[in-house]
Amino acid sequence: MNPRAIQEDYPDDMSHCYGCGRLNPDGLQLKSRRDGEEMVARFRPKPGHTSMPGFVYGGLLASLVDCHGMAVATDAALRARPERGIERFVTAALEVTYVHPTPLGVELEIRGKIEELGERKAVVSARILADGVECVRGRVVGVRVPGTMSRPATGGASNPE
Amino acid sequence: MNPRAIQEDYPDDMSHCYGCGRLNPDGLQLKSRRDGEEMVARFRPKPGHTSMPGFVYGGLLASLVDCHGMAVATDAALRARPERGIERFVTAALEVTYVHPTPLGVELEIRGKIEELGERKAVVSARILADGVECVRGRVVGVRVPGTMSRPATGGASNPE
Repeated sequence: MNPRAIQEDYPDDMSHCYGCGRLNPDGLQLKSRRDGEEMVARFRPKPGHTSMPGFVYGGLLASLVDCHGMAVATDAALRARPERGIERFVTAALEVTYVHPTPLGVELEIRGKIEELGERKAVVSARILADGVECVRGRVVGVRVPGTMSRPATGGASNPE
Repeated sequence: MNPRAIQEDYPDDMSHCYGCGRLNPDGLQLKSRRDGEEMVARFRPKPGHTSMPGFVYGGLLASLVDCHGMAVATDAALRARPERGIERFVTAALEVTYVHPTPLGVELEIRGKIEELGERKAVVSARILADGVECVRGRVVGVRVPGTMSRPATGGASNPE
C-alpha cells in the first residue's frame, strides 16, 4: 500500500472538509491510500457514533463513503492526468446501502475504486467492512468543482460559473 | 406545527443516535416535528461542518436526511397504528442528491414526507433548504428494526431474528 494518503497532498483550501480535511481539527480526518486498483481507508468510530446501542451511526458511514469516494476520484484524475495536479471534486450524488449492521468498537475498512472517469464527472464504488464482513455498499458521483465553489486566488480575478 | 418533536417520544434505547438521540450529548440532536403532511426539522451546522470553505459538508447533509427520514417513517407508522406505540426503524438505503451547494452560516430546513409505508419497510422523500433554496434531495428506505439489533429488556428473553 502507498504509505502516503492523498489527503496529505490536497491543497489547503480542500483541506477544511469535516470528513477528511487535515486542517479541520473537529473533523474525522479520514486518510485514503492506494492499494493496487483500490484505495483503502481505516477508521475507528468513537463511542458516540452510535445508531442503536452497539452499532455505528449510518450518517457516519455515509460520510466515510462520501469522503473516500472523492479521494478515489481525485486519485484517478491525478493518475490519468498528472500534469494537472490535484483537481477538486465535489459530491453530486451519494447512494448508500446498509447490508449488515455495522458493529461499534472495531476499526472499519473502507475500500473504493473508480468505475467511470470523464471530463466532468467520476463514479466510484465503495464498501465498508468490519472484521472482514461487508456492512455497507456505496456509490458516489463526483463532479469537478464548479467555479462558484472556488475562492479566487489572492489578487486574482473571481471565477464565476 | 406540532410543538413536540417525535424524538422526544423515542424510548431510551432509540435515543443514543448520533444524529437525533436526546441522550447523545456529542450528537446533532435533530428534532423533527409534524407540519401538515410533512415533517420539518431545523438545524444550524457548526463552523466545522465544512466541505469547501463556506459550504456545508455533504456527509452532514446525508446524516440530516437519514435521521429525519427515520423520524418521518416512525411518525407515519405511529399514525397508521397508534396502538403499537413507537416502532423502531433503521435505514436500509439512503440516496442523496446535492442539487445546489449548501451555504454555511444559515439555519437549514429539512422537510420530509412518507411515500410508502408497508409492514416491513417505509420509503421517505426529503429535501433540505437554505434560505428557501432547495440544496439537497434525498430518499430513505427504512425497515422495522430486526430483533438482532434490539437488546433484550432487563430480565426478559432475548429477541433473535
